[in-house]
Amino acid sequence: MEIIGLDNLPLIRDGDDLVEIISSALKEKGIALKNNDIVAVTEKIVAKAEGRLVDLDKVKPSRRAVVLGRKTEKDPRIVELILRESKEILAVGKNFIIVETKQGFICANAGVDQSNVEKGKAKLLPRNPDRSAKRIRKGLEEKIGKKIGVIIADSFGRPFRYGTVGIAIGASGIKALWDRRGDKDLFGRELQITRVAVADCLASAANMVMGEAKEKIPIAIIRGLNFSGSGKARDLIRKKREDVFR
Amino acid sequence: MEIIGLDNLPLIRDGDDLVEIISSALKEKGIALKNNDIVAVTEKIVAKAEGRLVDLDKVKPSRRAVVLGRKTEKDPRIVELILRESKEILAVGKNFIIVETKQGFICANAGVDQSNVEKGKAKLLPRNPDRSAKRIRKGLEEKIGKKIGVIIADSFGRPFRYGTVGIAIGASGIKALWDRRGDKDLFGRELQITRVAVADCLASAANMVMGEAKEKIPIAIIRGLNFSGSGKARDLIRKKREDVFR
Repeated sequence: MEIIGLDNLPLIRDGDDLVEIISSALKEKGIALKNNDIVAVTEKIVAKAEGRLVDLDKVKPSRRAVVLGRKTEKDPRIVELILRESKEILAVGKNFIIVETKQGFICANAGVDQSNVEKGKAKLLPRNPDRSAKRIRKGLEEKIGKKIGVIIADSFGRPFRYGTVGIAIGASGIKALWDRRGDKDLFGRELQITRVAVADCLASAANMVMGEAKEKIPIAIIRGLNFSGSGKARDLIRKKREDVFR
Repeated sequence: MEIIGLDNLPLIRDGDDLVEIISSALKEKGIALKNNDIVAVTEKIVAKAEGRLVDLDKVKPSRRAVVLGRKTEKDPRIVELILRESKEILAVGKNFIIVETKQGFICANAGVDQSNVEKGKAKLLPRNPDRSAKRIRKGLEEKIGKKIGVIIADSFGRPFRYGTVGIAIGASGIKALWDRRGDKDLFGRELQITRVAVADCLASAANMVMGEAKEKIPIAIIRGLNFSGSGKARDLIRKKREDVFR
């Protein structure tokens, strides 16, 4: 397995065609995608290309956002965006609000983020990242005539452990959740671990190459595995009633 | 970044010298470790080499284990081992007991596992995996004269999302938790994500190469990154009082 980062993309703006931009960057580096390659795209450039930057001056915080802003010591306009992006608030503390986003992700601040965006703006998560992944995959496949996978990688914190790990918020053309029920171990016994979060593991792997100031290396090509399939990142979202921690 | 799996190790037994076995396997493949290489070792072979296999016939379940076994539909002898390995029970359900282990990990069944072990036996987690990682690192470094890192990789489930991801239960010679507080983004603003769980991300990456029936490829060499440092996997364990989900 090999992961190749691309550091030669321009700054992405609203309306940019990521398929065009990724293929140009690959061409410039002399990299030809192969069958089963997986293209990891950082969430930030997808959000930017899809116009998910918000001008904070235009956000009018609700009363609820003002109260919650005081409680969390966060800018009430940011809190307003978090509330708009969320289905449910799970936990609140100094400088964080952990929510379930409208897309179903459990994360801090609904993914509303001011890193790597111009001052006075905030970035929201892509509205439907599985759809974004599919569009990018289809676009690249059409250009190059190979079957590839695409993941849209973000970094989330988690319970029980410090530090962020990679999370695939979007995926297309891969076995995002690898179901191994029925597979046998070395001694012919059925495996106790039955489902592997392949898309999240790949996002973590890609993050190691992309770093955190991800606009410098917003794309990573994962090569040498075969996880082609028809999964989506949505498959990884645990149903609330199947979650003992909710 | 490149990850090279080793599939040429013998079945590991109690008392085996992993340093010796890993260096022979590397030599056989013609792979020379370089400075900053990270050797990922699957937890299973560490546990086996350290004699952490238990003969189930010799386990006498306590009354508590019998009751909990009935409730979870688990073998009471397995439950007995889980209780012995645990500090606290967090959640219980059909066929699972989520605990905090004596080492401080939150995981299902305290890592007591019957996959890839002979019938009638169960495998416990290494007693002190950071120490195991350090011993393997020191041993390999002495043999080869390079500075490397070692992680001991396991697979855990997690709240909110389906599927297992890689978890470093042991680490040595690497920046296990990468503290980026104060680092700046592309626009000179301080990063909002401040700590990256490097060791867990690397474990997830290695797992993609090792697969799940991990004794076939129990070792993976991660090359091309520079995360050398003095971290431990213990650094990744969130303190209970800093965990809003406990």
